[in-house]
Amino acid sequence: MNWGETAADLLVRVRRERPLIHHLTNLVVMNVTANATLAVGAAPVMAHAAEEVAEMARAARAVVLNIGTLDERWVDSMLRAGRAANDAGVPVVLDPVGAGATELRTRTAERLLRELRVAVLRGNAGEIGVLSGVGGRVQGVDSAGAAAGGAALARAAAQRLGVVAAVTGEVDHVSDGRRVAAVRNGHRLLTAVTGTGCMATAVVAAFVAVGSDPLVAAACALAYYGYAAEVAAARAAGPGSFQVSLFDALYGLTPAELAAGVRIDWVEGGAA
Amino acid sequence: MNWGETAADLLVRVRRERPLIHHLTNLVVMNVTANATLAVGAAPVMAHAAEEVAEMARAARAVVLNIGTLDERWVDSMLRAGRAANDAGVPVVLDPVGAGATELRTRTAERLLRELRVAVLRGNAGEIGVLSGVGGRVQGVDSAGAAAGGAALARAAAQRLGVVAAVTGEVDHVSDGRRVAAVRNGHRLLTAVTGTGCMATAVVAAFVAVGSDPLVAAACALAYYGYAAEVAAARAAGPGSFQVSLFDALYGLTPAELAAGVRIDWVEGGAA
Amino acid sequence: MNWGETAADLLVRVRRERPLIHHLTNLVVMNVTANATLAVGAAPVMAHAAEEVAEMARAARAVVLNIGTLDERWVDSMLRAGRAANDAGVPVVLDPVGAGATELRTRTAERLLRELRVAVLRGNAGEIGVLSGVGGRVQGVDSAGAAAGGAALARAAAQRLGVVAAVTGEVDHVSDGRRVAAVRNGHRLLTAVTGTGCMATAVVAAFVAVGSDPLVAAACALAYYGYAAEVAAARAAGPGSFQVSLFDALYGLTPAELAAGVRIDWVEGGAA
Repeated sequence: MNWGETAADLLVRVRRERPLIHHLTNLVVMNVTANATLAVGAAPVMAHAAEEVAEMARAARAVVLNIGTLDERWVDSMLRAGRAANDAGVPVVLDPVGAGATELRTRTAERLLRELRVAVLRGNAGEIGVLSGVGGRVQGVDSAGAAAGGAALARAAAQRLGVVAAVTGEVDHVSDGRRVAAVRNGHRLLTAVTGTGCMATAVVAAFVAVGSDPLVAAACALAYYGYAAEVAAARAAGPGSFQVSLFDALYGLTPAELAAGVRIDWVEGGAA
Repeated sequence: MNWGETAADLLVRVRRERPLIHHLTNLVVMNVTANATLAVGAAPVMAHAAEEVAEMARAARAVVLNIGTLDERWVDSMLRAGRAANDAGVPVVLDPVGAGATELRTRTAERLLRELRVAVLRGNAGEIGVLSGVGGRVQGVDSAGAAAGGAALARAAAQRLGVVAAVTGEVDHVSDGRRVAAVRNGHRLLTAVTGTGCMATAVVAAFVAVGSDPLVAAACALAYYGYAAEVAAARAAGPGSFQVSLFDALYGLTPAELAAGVRIDWVEGGAA
Repeated sequence: MNWGETAADLLVRVRRERPLIHHLTNLVVMNVTANATLAVGAAPVMAHAAEEVAEMARAARAVVLNIGTLDERWVDSMLRAGRAANDAGVPVVLDPVGAGATELRTRTAERLLRELRVAVLRGNAGEIGVLSGVGGRVQGVDSAGAAAGGAALARAAAQRLGVVAAVTGEVDHVSDGRRVAAVRNGHRLLTAVTGTGCMATAVVAAFVAVGSDPLVAAACALAYYGYAAEVAAARAAGPGSFQVSLFDALYGLTPAELAAGVRIDWVEGGAA
């Protein structure tokens, strides 16, 4: 399997098909995740009213559920949207922001995972460590570590939760419980801007919307996003200019540039 | 009528009078519409609590209602603010984001149009096609086309809904049901950034707040906004840097530069 | 007392300790205040659900309450978070956005001040003039003047409300009711970008989280923020590029640069 070509093909498909991505996401990142979705070539819509989320989810090609600023009404709407998406065969991508930091977030993420078919769970090691039962610590919305390394953690989470688990960090690890891919693209400035994890989730959703293998789509999305961050960091003087350049890079990277910049490899299973 | 001079005069008035613009807008664009309002020279305030919207609307020079992330409570607050604005003679500018995409959005926009006196309805061809009964299709928040061309659509919407209708797209068309103006300023990068339509609505509200003829004010606002986009695009490397330069251009354009850059003409009615 | 060294020491502590700052803030500024908190070196978390705010407040090093887009549920959550913070000895920083503009905002800010121990009240002259009973006028969220000058107003507010009062404007004045410090850092472009006052409050919270004297911490935070604005303005072509450079400067300023750039002096009391 040629990861570079695969990632480039998926990017071409996102830009050609402009899949509608329905976001129920948090109040801090609504603007930047909409802009990341547009910059990738997909079409974002943010809709959370109980009266319309099912209708919007059915019209979408993927639904993002992000619990970053959850409250009771939003969780209800996430369940409605998630069920409608499951019924319509629309993939659900869950970002369990801050699971492990408070009892409400942990309990809510567990409920969403229990009541919905989640295609991809994208989170940091602390969040996924807590949700998979492997063990993890989270402070605010940041990972304070997990009891297992990325590859083992991703595999365990995928097996126990029945998802493709994408554990992001210095190296991202994506697993379906059998295969594990490692993604080595990215840049440290991603930690100096708010919502960059949530933006990664949005890009994953755009790729999963057009891809047939959620693990491959998620890994390619994270490589594309990480490579755009490398390109952006080279032009940046700090977090402000980095964020601006990140949108420019997500929008401007050509499939050929992506194919050359991708650093993904199978660490377990997967066709050589 | 000299559109260039008229647009320049309105810009000078906005910057001199700093009209207070009360926004009940969506969660994706709160920051950027506030910044667009400031960059134009007006003063934004975002307030949605049922207990205060009427008081804030009465103190404002224009009220923006934007249903982009509507829910039951926000619609109730929009009706309260709209009625108070109507009673106080404060112009209401409505942005029917996503009307046509879900039943809730279509029904809500129709209700606001029915129960309030709306001075200007600013939307894309799909949204306004649906609301005017001419016919239109909307996917997420994007127009997927309308059954009539911009000028005919704007005129029909104005006549049927009793508003000044501003249909924005590659060419914007603004009509009061008798006259139709075409605005040819703008840039394609506006479609690569989220909330640029909502920002156009915010700029329209600032001009309508100080103008005597809502059609003329809306057309001049769209020309100013479109021309700022042209200036910004010339400095941009993609959507991220485009958005940054757009705020700089909205803030920095001089009345003389605007007078030279405006491309508006009457396509129906209107003084030569 | 050497203000430059003191400010530099506090900045070093923020960056070393990465204090968790829990924000219940407004919908317009969630992204930018999170980014300002990150750029300073602290860790932001936005959480407003009634079920989790007390738990999150106890885990934080400071809690920011900002009433910019208040409604009933948010005020309830602010009281819950504030009480939990008070019980746990976590400093509460209040930004009374728009107090004086509507009855709801004035009444809510007064209630928060009455029912909670507020360590620092950061606002403009109009807001603090209204809340201290000295007299002030507010239009939307902007100060339209106060009945006393900055130093006298800050001292009166601190005495009457039992807070450290930070009155920001062209010159900022910070008082604990006995001492008054004047901060002369800043730049006029701060008035052309939305949420810059709210961002100042976020930076104050990060410094107060690690400082032992809230007046000194607040003054140093405002000097650091104002100096970063001076550095950013020198690179900016308008409000858009100014905001980008502001985050870069907050992130990149070294303690030594800060020590040289700080312009604070005691105008009343305080060790020479």
